[in-house]
Amino acid sequence: MRTREPGGTDLGVEIRGMVLHRRGHIAPRAEALLYAADRAHHVATVVRPALERGDVVLQDRYLDSSVAYQGAGRVLGADEVRTLSLWATEGLLPDLTILLDLDEASSRARLDTSRTEYDRLEAEASDFHARVRQGFLTLAGAEPERFLVIDATLPPDEIAAAIRSRVATMLG
Amino acid sequence: MRTREPGGTDLGVEIRGMVLHRRGHIAPRAEALLYAADRAHHVATVVRPALERGDVVLQDRYLDSSVAYQGAGRVLGADEVRTLSLWATEGLLPDLTILLDLDEASSRARLDTSRTEYDRLEAEASDFHARVRQGFLTLAGAEPERFLVIDATLPPDEIAAAIRSRVATMLG
Repeated sequence: MRTREPGGTDLGVEIRGMVLHRRGHIAPRAEALLYAADRAHHVATVVRPALERGDVVLQDRYLDSSVAYQGAGRVLGADEVRTLSLWATEGLLPDLTILLDLDEASSRARLDTSRTEYDRLEAEASDFHARVRQGFLTLAGAEPERFLVIDATLPPDEIAAAIRSRVATMLG
Repeated sequence: MRTREPGGTDLGVEIRGMVLHRRGHIAPRAEALLYAADRAHHVATVVRPALERGDVVLQDRYLDSSVAYQGAGRVLGADEVRTLSLWATEGLLPDLTILLDLDEASSRARLDTSRTEYDRLEAEASDFHARVRQGFLTLAGAEPERFLVIDATLPPDEIAAAIRSRVATMLG
């Protein structure tokens, strides 16, 4: 099953609109709690039922993104944001997390060629994105068995092959 | 300053619509996290600035309601829901909490004469409301110096006089 956070449920689509596209300031803890609310509803109503059926669930982002964006980017603290997500999901962690790593200048250059408008997080300054990237790399370093870190400057077919190879090992 | 939760900010009005008036199931932890998100934004952008100006802030509901409704009513655990709200607000507690206490049958009878439509929490069964009432009374028993518990079957002018008397002592 392919799904995403935020926005993997009807309620989540409304929350996604708030955290990514709403105009005006959102207090950092409120932002973290909205992501956690989206995650709690998504895991309880979509992801756990799928896992119980025996499905493989592929998500575009999960709790590591909250730890990197709100914990490191918004400086709320990695441990606190992780604890929040683990409470939200009753402790659900993925078997594998794929991190496509790119320095913030190259990321910004790619965004500039593919977007006419940034969302609330994309619009943050480069020091925010530097903290987020460092947050992700710290998480990957702490759990090397769960993370597959891929150099996102590689050609797409090489990236796909690396992911396919790792996933095939896990499923086989 | 008079304000309320949920819904004391523009963002909070949107969250209030979700938790009280949205159709369909909301996972209990998502509900608790949405209330906490509303509270985090409200405290950071409205309540703390007012307190820093020296204002007296009077709120219609605060974190004890989350502990009673989500902790006791939804059975998520009082301590966990309280911890969540204290994280959301960076530890802000009121000087005085007024609990208007009424048994659930009388509450329901009053609602029936004043409403044509229940919100999501009002529509819950009587055992939910019995747990919520017990949750509130347990909180009041644990912090008797912070709570003023008033028998809500008393005439409105007697209730008002009891509140006025206690508040006057605190302000004087």
